[in-house]
Amino acid sequence: MHFASDNSGPVHPKVMAAISAANDGYAMPYGADALMDTVRAQMRALFEAPEAAVYLVATGTAANSLALATLAEPYQTVFCSPVAHIHEDECNAPEFYTGGAKLTLVGDSAKMTPAALTAAIEVEESRGVHGPQRGPVSVTNVTERGTVYTPGEVKALADVAKGYGLAVHLDGARFANAIVATGATPAEMTWKAGVDVVSFGGTKNGLMGVEAVVMFDPKHAWEFELRRKRGAHLFSKHRYLSAQMLAYLDDGLWLEMARAANAANARLVAGLNGVEGVRFLHEPQANMGFAGWSRAGHQRLHDAGAQYYVWEGQLDGADPDAELTARLVCDWSTSAEDIDRFVDLVRG
Amino acid sequence: MHFASDNSGPVHPKVMAAISAANDGYAMPYGADALMDTVRAQMRALFEAPEAAVYLVATGTAANSLALATLAEPYQTVFCSPVAHIHEDECNAPEFYTGGAKLTLVGDSAKMTPAALTAAIEVEESRGVHGPQRGPVSVTNVTERGTVYTPGEVKALADVAKGYGLAVHLDGARFANAIVATGATPAEMTWKAGVDVVSFGGTKNGLMGVEAVVMFDPKHAWEFELRRKRGAHLFSKHRYLSAQMLAYLDDGLWLEMARAANAANARLVAGLNGVEGVRFLHEPQANMGFAGWSRAGHQRLHDAGAQYYVWEGQLDGADPDAELTARLVCDWSTSAEDIDRFVDLVRG
Amino acid sequence: MHFASDNSGPVHPKVMAAISAANDGYAMPYGADALMDTVRAQMRALFEAPEAAVYLVATGTAANSLALATLAEPYQTVFCSPVAHIHEDECNAPEFYTGGAKLTLVGDSAKMTPAALTAAIEVEESRGVHGPQRGPVSVTNVTERGTVYTPGEVKALADVAKGYGLAVHLDGARFANAIVATGATPAEMTWKAGVDVVSFGGTKNGLMGVEAVVMFDPKHAWEFELRRKRGAHLFSKHRYLSAQMLAYLDDGLWLEMARAANAANARLVAGLNGVEGVRFLHEPQANMGFAGWSRAGHQRLHDAGAQYYVWEGQLDGADPDAELTARLVCDWSTSAEDIDRFVDLVRG
Amino acid sequence: MHFASDNSGPVHPKVMAAISAANDGYAMPYGADALMDTVRAQMRALFEAPEAAVYLVATGTAANSLALATLAEPYQTVFCSPVAHIHEDECNAPEFYTGGAKLTLVGDSAKMTPAALTAAIEVEESRGVHGPQRGPVSVTNVTERGTVYTPGEVKALADVAKGYGLAVHLDGARFANAIVATGATPAEMTWKAGVDVVSFGGTKNGLMGVEAVVMFDPKHAWEFELRRKRGAHLFSKHRYLSAQMLAYLDDGLWLEMARAANAANARLVAGLNGVEGVRFLHEPQANMGFAGWSRAGHQRLHDAGAQYYVWEGQLDGADPDAELTARLVCDWSTSAEDIDRFVDLVRG
Repeated sequence: MHFASDNSGPVHPKVMAAISAANDGYAMPYGADALMDTVRAQMRALFEAPEAAVYLVATGTAANSLALATLAEPYQTVFCSPVAHIHEDECNAPEFYTGGAKLTLVGDSAKMTPAALTAAIEVEESRGVHGPQRGPVSVTNVTERGTVYTPGEVKALADVAKGYGLAVHLDGARFANAIVATGATPAEMTWKAGVDVVSFGGTKNGLMGVEAVVMFDPKHAWEFELRRKRGAHLFSKHRYLSAQMLAYLDDGLWLEMARAANAANARLVAGLNGVEGVRFLHEPQANMGFAGWSRAGHQRLHDAGAQYYVWEGQLDGADPDAELTARLVCDWSTSAEDIDRFVDLVRG
Repeated sequence: MHFASDNSGPVHPKVMAAISAANDGYAMPYGADALMDTVRAQMRALFEAPEAAVYLVATGTAANSLALATLAEPYQTVFCSPVAHIHEDECNAPEFYTGGAKLTLVGDSAKMTPAALTAAIEVEESRGVHGPQRGPVSVTNVTERGTVYTPGEVKALADVAKGYGLAVHLDGARFANAIVATGATPAEMTWKAGVDVVSFGGTKNGLMGVEAVVMFDPKHAWEFELRRKRGAHLFSKHRYLSAQMLAYLDDGLWLEMARAANAANARLVAGLNGVEGVRFLHEPQANMGFAGWSRAGHQRLHDAGAQYYVWEGQLDGADPDAELTARLVCDWSTSAEDIDRFVDLVRG
Repeated sequence: MHFASDNSGPVHPKVMAAISAANDGYAMPYGADALMDTVRAQMRALFEAPEAAVYLVATGTAANSLALATLAEPYQTVFCSPVAHIHEDECNAPEFYTGGAKLTLVGDSAKMTPAALTAAIEVEESRGVHGPQRGPVSVTNVTERGTVYTPGEVKALADVAKGYGLAVHLDGARFANAIVATGATPAEMTWKAGVDVVSFGGTKNGLMGVEAVVMFDPKHAWEFELRRKRGAHLFSKHRYLSAQMLAYLDDGLWLEMARAANAANARLVAGLNGVEGVRFLHEPQANMGFAGWSRAGHQRLHDAGAQYYVWEGQLDGADPDAELTARLVCDWSTSAEDIDRFVDLVRG
Repeated sequence: MHFASDNSGPVHPKVMAAISAANDGYAMPYGADALMDTVRAQMRALFEAPEAAVYLVATGTAANSLALATLAEPYQTVFCSPVAHIHEDECNAPEFYTGGAKLTLVGDSAKMTPAALTAAIEVEESRGVHGPQRGPVSVTNVTERGTVYTPGEVKALADVAKGYGLAVHLDGARFANAIVATGATPAEMTWKAGVDVVSFGGTKNGLMGVEAVVMFDPKHAWEFELRRKRGAHLFSKHRYLSAQMLAYLDDGLWLEMARAANAANARLVAGLNGVEGVRFLHEPQANMGFAGWSRAGHQRLHDAGAQYYVWEGQLDGADPDAELTARLVCDWSTSAEDIDRFVDLVRG
């Protein structure tokens, strides 16, 4: 019963097979491998973006930080949600990679609204040379609270950004889950909605450790390559990154895994909603949910070895009725048995 | 006939098997996997350093830059060879990770001498607050020219550094090849010789992409973890790094592969030395050599599909007798057949 | 009628005289001038801190950024008010000088409370290596809204910081005005209240351009010197900075000027409070106030050449009764005539 | 007898008078003062560059570092002499301000040659994404060894740079002395020779602490303003910088002072050349020279209170005949009496 994170599950067997298949003799290093040519072509086809620059890195933080570094000057500020991964979970990597840009927190929830974004941008208006300058807007989809932006909602934010001449980055660590949840095409969710650069996640969705950065306007492509190398994120044996991404795209495996993860989440949500006293904090629209129930219920799960984060509250406490909130994440490999057993344990 | 680099060869089958074996269910992320506990214990045993801090990253540039960032302040300078990888081949990553420290180039060859190091350190002496301050010394072994420091030579440099209170870093991207070439133990080559932190390479020696950073004094351990995360080099699915390194250390596979690479290089050197007109620039002591011969010979190799870097000179030129220098690198998988065929083609 | 800022008024004649007096022949450069020895001794006496390290720079942003750079690691976050100068008015200089540290905004007003500070620090608790680490707390006194912390209030914040092992910086761009407003001694307002480093302002209070950084524990003194030089803030002709600061401290000129500024502000506040329809947003406790009145009143002032910032609202608009907020700042040279004339114009 | 540096002499009385004259009532802060408008106009006229962007900062290191930060990307390298101030005397400020760019040392003397520059640029050629990329060329005139580039020599270097598409920066900390020495116009020494940005020094030539940065193509003007603010080098009471620079330009005071300094140096050189056993290391073409003579001669000067740097060798030593090298610098205020007395003491 593992619901701690979609980054602790196994790699899909097809991906493992692709890695093994790539392990044949010599290959050109540093992204000049033949597999990467295919990745690039497939990614451009997937995004209906024949000019896009496509690069691979091994961590989501690298994808986000390098993307932002090409979009933000060090005297600018990046607009994002107060719970954005780039703000809360990257130990100042965006500040490091941008050379010291600031992050301006927009509104008070995981999903930014056009009104909150406009207000935040306006605040940075009147200080001239004294204040940080307006920089890119970074949108996270799926959000860090398990909710999902529709393409229309992304476009509404991007329209605000464009109105101020600002670039738009999409942190798609769970891009596949958002695509499955909305039924949108990759193009609709990104450049057709005004996104300039997307971090196209794979690690949380069945890969070993690969994320793509797709830049719809390739003007920063060479700069990206230099910043990637300077950040120590250019792999010599790059073919093993390419092989993973290729297997991910082949036959829609990326969507198949996201569908499985979202379906597992839906089963878990349905099950928990049938338990009296369970309350979801946000609408769990993809593969992650936040729900509260009694400490006693958590204790039963803990004793049974269930793994997940207690998000608010402490397991060790006196009051068995106190409500503690859990973060529950499913991945492609979550089994129906584990979900049902988990729900039973909450029910008690 | 691939002699371009030891970073373009295949992963050893035992390593691939270990990665596959690790792909079983869930595992704690971010280095908390059980495999990493074993890696840490084995690495400490290997280095006879029970207190050492041990971390894994995926690229050699990350290992070097993060190690230097914990040793150098931004107002200091790092002493290294003018052909050091950290100077020539990391696109300013050390400057980036240290927050802007300088690199001072010592002497004029790949192997630093105590006299040249002393002179370089002394130059930074008299400027007080105006000049960069003296920072760590970084030694590369195997050097970028295929030569090897003995433990005594490393110690002589470290003694100079210690005399000025400076820390010592060892870039061991080809550490295994240096160990095999000298017969030294890992401890003799590092902390017993005065090295504080070593980048213990794996990628160039049969791994997919893993390097260890071993800090003999763990005082900077937590700082290293923070800098690794901030540099976007902390892997969520860390178990696959651990598995590679574990396979590498098990049963001395790391030495077995380095022995094979060094032996291949020796066969290549012996063969080429038997060809009239071939001249080695540096003594090829490990798995890499630099040798010159006529353009006509290079052309024959080129036509036969041999891959290697022409280090000095240009293949396309008029004079067939002009000498061009090649960099030739062997890895664990280089075959005797390829070597012999290569030598035959040089001979013409 | 100049109420735009205390950074646009003239230099006090005694300070100008001291600069001229210092212009005699040669003097040792880079802070080795004899005048600086006296500054250091006087500053230590003033703060009752015989061990303190004392340095001069030319801008408040330099004082703050360099002080924070010695206190914060790049993977940490600095706690400050959302309207702190270091956040709003330094164009990311703290991020630049710290190498990319973050700023965490505490509460929602210019004066931080211990409760809000505790809450902000606690938020940074549970993310381990993923989140930014807790760094120093920066307190601004006089605040950016013209309110003043008592020494007890500073101590209450510092007690929270110390409880978490965090250092405390005090941005005292208007330190003199806070001292005059509270009647505290410099020691009571700083190290006796738990402050580790203070930016001791002079430029806004009658100097040409000098701020002192006083570090009560000199452990970071040499690091500060190196960071100052590296930041290009070490003056060769340093004697002219020393001369200003010496004149400032001599015979309590610094307090005399702050008393004049605070008194001018009090006269202005009293006058405006006597005008119907004028409303102060914050209690103006030192030399700065924020007050609202009708657009018609602002228009009269504008036509008469009065200079100040309209903080909220726009002068050009249709409704003469609409309330616009002004920021009004007095300095040592503000005349009673100008104040009374200003009040008369508001009254209409 | 002060020959230690041109940064330790007094401010010219006309400059002091201008500062005092500027101290009248209120003035717009942050470079919006009316004096700055005149400075800008005069500087553009002086350089025959009506479009040039003109900014003032207080230190030479700030001028150089900010100029380079607008010209160099963090993944590039700056080409300069191995004894350039930006390399030896700025404690890594250029690395700091550029975000971690490297400095590549050209040749082995203070004056770069086109051949050495070409060779250095070519070295950075073949590494693709791995090596630092080619960045701007920085030329120092007067050099750090007291020699002077003619406009033709500057142009020859700039032609090399332009051939590679690289920008050219001129560190003119002693620009006035170079102009006087060569008889060139400011335009001939800069943009007509291919210089893009010049650090136009004032501090070493009779100002209190002001340098101008003149950018002949204003495309980076706003970026410069933001980087200046972020570097904490934007002065609120900017009028006092403007006043100094205005006095400097008025009636050619800047040239008058440089003429005096160069003439003093010529007298000193002539005097010392008349002393047996004195040897100049470089041709002293402006206001600085490096000369060697016996320790006994140095001892006599030391006992008489002469101030200068012993550049090579140590005053305290056994052999009275050992030759020690002195660096001798004259400024506008150096008196003939001091020079003659100095020469007499060397003569013994």
